[in-house]
Amino acid sequence: MARERLVVIGGDAAGMSAASQARRRRSPDDLEIVAVERGRHTSYSACGIPYLVGGMVSDAEALVVRTPATFRERYAIDVLVEHEAVVLDLDRRAVVVRQPDGGRRVLDFDQVVVATGAVPRRPDLPGVDAVGVHGVQTLGDGEAVRAALAAGARQAVVVGAGYIGLEMAEALVNRGLAVTVVEAGPQPMSTVDPDMGAMVAEAMRTMDITVRLNEPVRAIEAGPDGAVRAVVTSMGEVPADLVILGLGVVPNTELARAAGLALGPTGGIRTDASMRSVSHPGVWAAGDCVETMHRVSMAPVHAPLGTHANKQGRIVGINIGGGYATFPGVVGTAVTRVCDLEIARTGLTESEATRSGFRFLTAVVESTTRAGYYPGAEPITTKLIAEKRSGRLLGAQIVGRDGAAKRIDVLATAVWQSMTVEEMTGLDLSYAPPFAPVWDPVLIAARRAAEAVEVDLADLVGG
Amino acid sequence: MARERLVVIGGDAAGMSAASQARRRRSPDDLEIVAVERGRHTSYSACGIPYLVGGMVSDAEALVVRTPATFRERYAIDVLVEHEAVVLDLDRRAVVVRQPDGGRRVLDFDQVVVATGAVPRRPDLPGVDAVGVHGVQTLGDGEAVRAALAAGARQAVVVGAGYIGLEMAEALVNRGLAVTVVEAGPQPMSTVDPDMGAMVAEAMRTMDITVRLNEPVRAIEAGPDGAVRAVVTSMGEVPADLVILGLGVVPNTELARAAGLALGPTGGIRTDASMRSVSHPGVWAAGDCVETMHRVSMAPVHAPLGTHANKQGRIVGINIGGGYATFPGVVGTAVTRVCDLEIARTGLTESEATRSGFRFLTAVVESTTRAGYYPGAEPITTKLIAEKRSGRLLGAQIVGRDGAAKRIDVLATAVWQSMTVEEMTGLDLSYAPPFAPVWDPVLIAARRAAEAVEVDLADLVGG
Repeated sequence: MARERLVVIGGDAAGMSAASQARRRRSPDDLEIVAVERGRHTSYSACGIPYLVGGMVSDAEALVVRTPATFRERYAIDVLVEHEAVVLDLDRRAVVVRQPDGGRRVLDFDQVVVATGAVPRRPDLPGVDAVGVHGVQTLGDGEAVRAALAAGARQAVVVGAGYIGLEMAEALVNRGLAVTVVEAGPQPMSTVDPDMGAMVAEAMRTMDITVRLNEPVRAIEAGPDGAVRAVVTSMGEVPADLVILGLGVVPNTELARAAGLALGPTGGIRTDASMRSVSHPGVWAAGDCVETMHRVSMAPVHAPLGTHANKQGRIVGINIGGGYATFPGVVGTAVTRVCDLEIARTGLTESEATRSGFRFLTAVVESTTRAGYYPGAEPITTKLIAEKRSGRLLGAQIVGRDGAAKRIDVLATAVWQSMTVEEMTGLDLSYAPPFAPVWDPVLIAARRAAEAVEVDLADLVGG
Repeated sequence: MARERLVVIGGDAAGMSAASQARRRRSPDDLEIVAVERGRHTSYSACGIPYLVGGMVSDAEALVVRTPATFRERYAIDVLVEHEAVVLDLDRRAVVVRQPDGGRRVLDFDQVVVATGAVPRRPDLPGVDAVGVHGVQTLGDGEAVRAALAAGARQAVVVGAGYIGLEMAEALVNRGLAVTVVEAGPQPMSTVDPDMGAMVAEAMRTMDITVRLNEPVRAIEAGPDGAVRAVVTSMGEVPADLVILGLGVVPNTELARAAGLALGPTGGIRTDASMRSVSHPGVWAAGDCVETMHRVSMAPVHAPLGTHANKQGRIVGINIGGGYATFPGVVGTAVTRVCDLEIARTGLTESEATRSGFRFLTAVVESTTRAGYYPGAEPITTKLIAEKRSGRLLGAQIVGRDGAAKRIDVLATAVWQSMTVEEMTGLDLSYAPPFAPVWDPVLIAARRAAEAVEVDLADLVGG
């Protein structure tokens, strides 16, 4: 058999997981692997950028899991950094790449993986390209913000109060800046319900972050030198010498769209279970550029997280390598820690459940992370959303202090398995005073939710 | 309808949960509830005793969840403390109780709950009743050990290296005593596999606990004053002025046995799913005095843990109250923290799996509790045991530092749901640098185990 060539477009989590897995199963004599990456780094933790900015991580290299040299030497994977794929030609089965010197190079392939990731959502605002306005996506972005701090930035405005926005806000407060978070919506962290979001807002204020809600940004003002001066919102002007765009990301699919790959309603590349393009089964795609299915809503979602990118990349690599693996979708699990508050979610929120056609009951319980008498017991609020009648767990949220949030994984597993809250009350979860009260908060919440379902059912049947 | 009387024998977790739940559903006009408890306390956390001894909890009252007065005033439940049930007469439907003054009293009942708990296993050793030899079961035991410390105890020997033995050993080291743990078996913590047990032994030695393995105790020596002087093992004499029996507990079923209630092979009372005695369906039983079913081995087990006692008591109370609930068995989850090491298990260990007729593959992975670059990332070792061919998760163990052990709950849920390790690789577990590496240790372990199952299957089919 002639040697095949695999070209991987994108050298971060999804692409390099695919490349590594393919290599594990196929030798360099059988499969040549070339990865192209427009940035300077491979396989880095974008999620670590706020900690790099905040100084908890000392330098950008610490966030790099594997360097191009490692891939070359240890995996015989050729990584071309600062090479940008500009054309994906499916008829010719070739990728046209722009080299660092501006020249073009054509890479023929037998197989191709599209792992072009996501790009920060940049609002179409006057002044958004001013000097001092930064997204948070690449290590380069993190380094640019660090440089701004070193250059004396004092007043930061974070646009958008989602995960990355809040993590950056905390990092900047920790570095001594005055920080204002401006959010168009009515609560920070719109991925949790308003009752949980209110706790987040409270924690931010306690940490001297100014929180401005219901304030859409109208413009970014630059001075005569082109450097940002202020953020203009519906309520007025907020002075700023540093602006962070924390508005989330969108799939980076220019190349895929131009090549004719089918995109879904979320803007991501549509794939089948084995991560092949639905329109072009000869093309693999993985990571932040694809859309996937939510196992509860049964609807397509764009879920740009490192976990999914790694899993999907691995699945692509196994399949290219001659094995068999499929991606089973997601349940929308996410976690963060902001201002000493741990916040986690899985499944559907109330509004997501409503939009998906579900009717449900909720239970919210206050408890502690450890036995109440044990030192270090911290508060934890657990919310469950259970379907009416069936009692199936549709979603869950946790807000609390140290030791609270990782409990979301039990709930994510229960959602994944379509457990009912009644079934969950029996779960044999671990107990010892340093780890939980004798009734773990998850079990108390399950009991309350099961009681609510039971009472509601009696009403339904009785009425 | 005439007012019924419910008599609850045993005023700790199981009994008082049953009483409270029954009260929630039935008013005092409809159901009189009397609980008898031979000790002085109700509803206390026996699991908290090591922390009481170690000084992390300042006094015994902190471990009492609800006092007899609270039960009386808030729940209209009459609790007779220092009353011991001495006869359970099922024909007459009456309990004979010994009162504090030694007098007898007869309590007729319409319904009865047997919640007599467990008693520490007391080996049949010469000298075991010497002054200074303590079990760890009641708050009184905890107070007695504290009194021994106050009286100047210096050298402690803990007999048995299970959960309670190790927790007590650490507590006593923290109080400045010289502590030796003597264990008849080849490893501490026999509820985990030898490879994991070795890590526990290492941590104990690091903390200056002397660990003597493979040393059965032959006798306990007392001085002429009747006070303990030394523990005699197969290898010689270990001086001691305080001896803790950490040999586990056995169901306290004297009363039940005399009444003719069927006991199972583990010595616990046999119940049906609704927690009624299998031989006398008019009698309820719950907590450490019953045996239950292990959902993986499908065999009866005695699982004396506060979590099960609370759940079973609640189920009894719901059923007495006119509702419907059943206990679904256990999967053998347990957790502890000893010498800064967190240790957790669920499902079956290797030896338990073998004894239960399973053949299996294992995966052991070393990882960190947080992203490697994030401050406070601690080591975690995760072991999975997966059935051959099916790949079903049979059991899991975790040993690690801060933040490691509570991950066992995800694995307990997966065992509960009979998930395969392959299915588990898809789980949407939470990720952010303060909480996990991008591949959570649970997922890495699932991948490894799934690969082992796949390779083995190829061999099976190929051979």
